[in-house]
Amino acid sequence: MKTIPLLEPLAAELDRVELKMRGPEHPDYPQLTEVLKHLLNSGGKRLRPALALVAGRVYQADPEKLISLAASVEMLHTATLVHDDLIDGALMRRGNPTLNASWSPGATVLTGDYLFARSAALAAETDNVQVIRIFAATLMTICSGELRQIFDRHSFPRLDSDLAWEKVLDRYDQRIHAKTASLFAAATESAAVLGSAPNAELEALRDFGRLLGMGFQIIDDVLDFQGDEEVLGKPVGSDLRDGIITLPALYFLRAHPDDNRIATVVRDGGDDRLVREVAAAICESTAIAQAWERARAFIAQSQAALRALPEGEPRSMLYALAEYTASRNK
Amino acid sequence: MKTIPLLEPLAAELDRVELKMRGPEHPDYPQLTEVLKHLLNSGGKRLRPALALVAGRVYQADPEKLISLAASVEMLHTATLVHDDLIDGALMRRGNPTLNASWSPGATVLTGDYLFARSAALAAETDNVQVIRIFAATLMTICSGELRQIFDRHSFPRLDSDLAWEKVLDRYDQRIHAKTASLFAAATESAAVLGSAPNAELEALRDFGRLLGMGFQIIDDVLDFQGDEEVLGKPVGSDLRDGIITLPALYFLRAHPDDNRIATVVRDGGDDRLVREVAAAICESTAIAQAWERARAFIAQSQAALRALPEGEPRSMLYALAEYTASRNK
Repeated sequence: MKTIPLLEPLAAELDRVELKMRGPEHPDYPQLTEVLKHLLNSGGKRLRPALALVAGRVYQADPEKLISLAASVEMLHTATLVHDDLIDGALMRRGNPTLNASWSPGATVLTGDYLFARSAALAAETDNVQVIRIFAATLMTICSGELRQIFDRHSFPRLDSDLAWEKVLDRYDQRIHAKTASLFAAATESAAVLGSAPNAELEALRDFGRLLGMGFQIIDDVLDFQGDEEVLGKPVGSDLRDGIITLPALYFLRAHPDDNRIATVVRDGGDDRLVREVAAAICESTAIAQAWERARAFIAQSQAALRALPEGEPRSMLYALAEYTASRNK
Repeated sequence: MKTIPLLEPLAAELDRVELKMRGPEHPDYPQLTEVLKHLLNSGGKRLRPALALVAGRVYQADPEKLISLAASVEMLHTATLVHDDLIDGALMRRGNPTLNASWSPGATVLTGDYLFARSAALAAETDNVQVIRIFAATLMTICSGELRQIFDRHSFPRLDSDLAWEKVLDRYDQRIHAKTASLFAAATESAAVLGSAPNAELEALRDFGRLLGMGFQIIDDVLDFQGDEEVLGKPVGSDLRDGIITLPALYFLRAHPDDNRIATVVRDGGDDRLVREVAAAICESTAIAQAWERARAFIAQSQAALRALPEGEPRSMLYALAEYTASRNK
């Protein structure tokens, strides 16, 4: 697990989150224990659990419950990745083979289901019904967003007026909210619930998570074009390959309405050469800078939301985590 | 929806469960509203929600919460069926086309996930953390049981000693517990929790659900050989076709250790002719009667567990529901 340097003060708690996620060994299902190890070892930067832990510190929430919450959030995230990779037919993630690269689709579906169940059980360990409601609502938002993405896939947006552009941008925002921002918001809001935060601060923490998540996902979408394939562990332009148009491509299309290459890739699927050509064109255009600017605006707003919270080390750390997110390159 | 006649006194509550499951319309996702309607209209006999409602009546549990619980249990059941049908490649269920018969695998996975989320949200509506814990634990049991079924699929059991037989039977029992009895038990136990039942009675209701579920699933497995294809809405011997050996086949194998036909079907997949030949052989043997006897023994035990409950109409109705289960033919 590659940790973020500024998470050092949380190292002990993050270790406990890790242990909680791994759970007990399953002597009856050595395959399941193995697979969980594999999924967690190839895991990300644990930003979501860190957000929950730090947000909870603002209110001295019960550390045990915070650890359950943090583990629940990361487990939910892991479960959705397992199903996403299956659906997209992705064979690599973060430079590691995905579960569906070696397991049957059936076993992969069920492993994802099992992880959903685990994350629900971890949410229940917080002993807080409001947290569990947030958990369930977030899972509904994530799933219905993914479903919409499937229904929208391979469809090409009309950008021929300002109104059409607003609508397309709004649809993009809804999609990244469902995909990413909703879970970031659930992490920070639930931590506030566990800490019995005053209502206005609870809302501020929810907004912080949501806005940071929006920025985070836009950067993800930018790095899908701009990032280093080695570092990302997947080929450039993977969203376009899957028929999904993200913000950099939208900005590019707005500026180059007569360029048909993106439409070709999205509608008919494109060969590797064409995808790389389109990705290069997007990278050379102003689209990338525009997307970065929008991501940084969201992150600046997330930092502004923190002003409603009491000053102190946890608040500064949330601020710094947002700063880190704005500068990430993988 | 075909209701069981003896559920007439519950008609009004079951209607409310139905409404709760349907939930609000999704103007953004007409596809999702349609699909939910389709899944619920082609639905079963609503035995699981009925068990929750009646068990809750023993203790005058809050009707609102019971309805949320009942809806949650049936929604969880529906979600598992969506993923099961996808994994088995089943095109028909209860005489209706399955979701995966017309939708892509990706959309089917996500719809199942969405239904899991809905069932978690409904469980959270009970406002009872213990119920939610039972819900999450049951979902884990179901998923890990299905995973084991996948790992065990196409493997042929050794039955060459009494010890081996006991082990194989035990494994079968674990499988049907995970697949069916665990959710029956969750329905009746959770209702007892909502009614603040005394501990001994809570355990009795859990046992009742579990034992009834064991009997129910054995009958399901018998009907897979013995049932009318028209009534079942699927071809005879569908488990064997999927490489799964159920109780009637196990009894047959115990009595006919030299008959290699089941091994051939399970290991290599069999053509329709061979599966029908094997199913006919099982139906003509004593295996069916032995399996019925075992199912009825479980159901009689479930009825015996009811003795721990206070006498009255709800207890009589649970008894009658068990009686109905023991005589079902579809």
